[in-house]
Amino acid sequence: MEKDLLAAIAAISPPDREAMARAEKRQAALAKPPGSLGKLEELSVRLAGITGKVINHIGKTRIIVLAADNGVVEEGVSSAPQSVTLAQTVNLTRALTGASSMAAYFGDGLVVADVGVNAVVDCPAVLDRKIAMGTGNIVREPAMTRDQAVRAVEIGMELARDAKNDGVDIIGVGEMGIGNTTTSAAVLAALLSLSAEDVTGRGGGLTDDGFARKKAVIASALALHRPDPGDPLDVLGKVGGFDIAAMCGVFLGAAECSLPVVIDGFISIVAALCAARLCENVKAYLIPSHASFEKGYAAAAEELGLQPYLLLDMRLGEGSGCPLAFRVVQAACAVMNGMATFDGAGINDDYLTEIRENEDICFGRS
Amino acid sequence: MEKDLLAAIAAISPPDREAMARAEKRQAALAKPPGSLGKLEELSVRLAGITGKVINHIGKTRIIVLAADNGVVEEGVSSAPQSVTLAQTVNLTRALTGASSMAAYFGDGLVVADVGVNAVVDCPAVLDRKIAMGTGNIVREPAMTRDQAVRAVEIGMELARDAKNDGVDIIGVGEMGIGNTTTSAAVLAALLSLSAEDVTGRGGGLTDDGFARKKAVIASALALHRPDPGDPLDVLGKVGGFDIAAMCGVFLGAAECSLPVVIDGFISIVAALCAARLCENVKAYLIPSHASFEKGYAAAAEELGLQPYLLLDMRLGEGSGCPLAFRVVQAACAVMNGMATFDGAGINDDYLTEIRENEDICFGRS
Repeated sequence: MEKDLLAAIAAISPPDREAMARAEKRQAALAKPPGSLGKLEELSVRLAGITGKVINHIGKTRIIVLAADNGVVEEGVSSAPQSVTLAQTVNLTRALTGASSMAAYFGDGLVVADVGVNAVVDCPAVLDRKIAMGTGNIVREPAMTRDQAVRAVEIGMELARDAKNDGVDIIGVGEMGIGNTTTSAAVLAALLSLSAEDVTGRGGGLTDDGFARKKAVIASALALHRPDPGDPLDVLGKVGGFDIAAMCGVFLGAAECSLPVVIDGFISIVAALCAARLCENVKAYLIPSHASFEKGYAAAAEELGLQPYLLLDMRLGEGSGCPLAFRVVQAACAVMNGMATFDGAGINDDYLTEIRENEDICFGRS
Repeated sequence: MEKDLLAAIAAISPPDREAMARAEKRQAALAKPPGSLGKLEELSVRLAGITGKVINHIGKTRIIVLAADNGVVEEGVSSAPQSVTLAQTVNLTRALTGASSMAAYFGDGLVVADVGVNAVVDCPAVLDRKIAMGTGNIVREPAMTRDQAVRAVEIGMELARDAKNDGVDIIGVGEMGIGNTTTSAAVLAALLSLSAEDVTGRGGGLTDDGFARKKAVIASALALHRPDPGDPLDVLGKVGGFDIAAMCGVFLGAAECSLPVVIDGFISIVAALCAARLCENVKAYLIPSHASFEKGYAAAAEELGLQPYLLLDMRLGEGSGCPLAFRVVQAACAVMNGMATFDGAGINDDYLTEIRENEDICFGRS
């Protein structure tokens, strides 16, 4: 079904420039020094491009967490054992993990899908989208077949479409999978033609030995498979993971459905970069959250032209940056929807003449 | 009443180190790689120090906005006319401004107090704490008398005590006062013995000419009054404003009441620095929000040892950074209160032995 997937991707629309222009005009008319709300202003304009509307409401939120295991963990690239993937996949549905405890507090929905956990997931709250019992060890073999990569991306797109059908206003993308900072570093290195040294961090907390091993493993996997940087499906299939590939699909599906979609940390932004490489239009739908502490995040963010809103030195994953990013987006909407324009604020001095001349659009409060 | 004020300030307690140690122990027991929630972990430990409790709930929030005019605006140091102070002071109570539209959206309380607006504020929703109809022009005369500075600080402390009595869990501090980036830059320069050049930004959006004038005005006021850097009340009285002095009082009062208190932007952090200079213990109660785009913010933040959580390029004031900072604090609590410990998460591998040994404190979910 690669043909069908590529057709769906090709149909993703660019942002609505006309709505963005209207949003900019309204921002200029709001009673504040121009630009004084900084990135909240930019964000409200980007939202208009995504939804086609100047006034947006972010009510129903959903974090989609993709869980999968990675064969490469047998190389000792992670500080945690593989069993943690299963335990935390289940705990995510019970609001017991970092991301899910925040999501529960703020009332954000959370959907957890198993796309390749290397265990039987005996938990009805976890969606069963399992492709296989974990990926191959990328030091010795490809992570997955090309068909499996296509399938994983399709699963992600479907999850985004489900969100749209459920009336969700914004999606966030997270993951759970021991070893996935290794696979995502490999994917990033391949896409940007960087070295393992440039993109590899300590993940959950490796020792010096483990860190050296991780870099060697990534370099070795890249040398073995020589993934094609111009073909993200080749990269995902050879050195990626089911989680990253499905996350890439969620980003694509969100764009297809005209939904804003929040990037969490390192693994999430690598998946977003894959999506943007498959379709340039996707970039307009991506909302950054926090600056991951994991090395490689910055390179991916720069490539996507995104600057994170939150500086929290986090490196947990799971979509843990999404709850606070949702609040940033809501704040941007609150300003756009709630603030008075200069006339409405009773501010009528000469210095505002220029701004008032632009005020042919003047919305009431919503 | 300076004697009474200084006695109240001297009675402010240091943070509860024992509670902080318990909070650190619990953070180490939560099921995540140690440190992977970065500043949210630090923040939960700081909160324990403030409240004396490991498990904290941030339910009722309040932004306290101090409004006042500044005589120095007659020197042409602001891009907006003085009348904007009155208009926006009233609009703040109607959820029509940047900060108040966000506060209304998130359900944060907002208290607006007139401590020196140069107009009759005919709006019952604005608390009348007026000290005078604006300050003196600091280029020619002191902003206020020392007694007035003391009074302004006392008013701020009272507003914090009112919040405590009303059951508020966290305070944020904002301002409305055309010309107050000039006065706060002057206060900051005096406190840190820096030049006008080092601390002065463009405020709401000055032209090159206005910007040069603003720097000259600040340099000239500092040269005229030579405020004593070791005496914050002298600095506030000679080159400050009623808003900054009262904000300083809110920070002091919050610390007195064991309440966490959020710093907004440039003016707010200068007021926080005044409070910290009056009482070193205050530092433990200060929660940063966003990195203000205004020059001088970074110097004050470094002096206070604070790193902002949000990077939004904002420079609006009004307390506009507080609503999102409240959410960051709530997220820190959600993690601390909601996450499972390793045992609770069903993660029981050898690599956790060390962490489990520390797990004599294991709270249930709250």
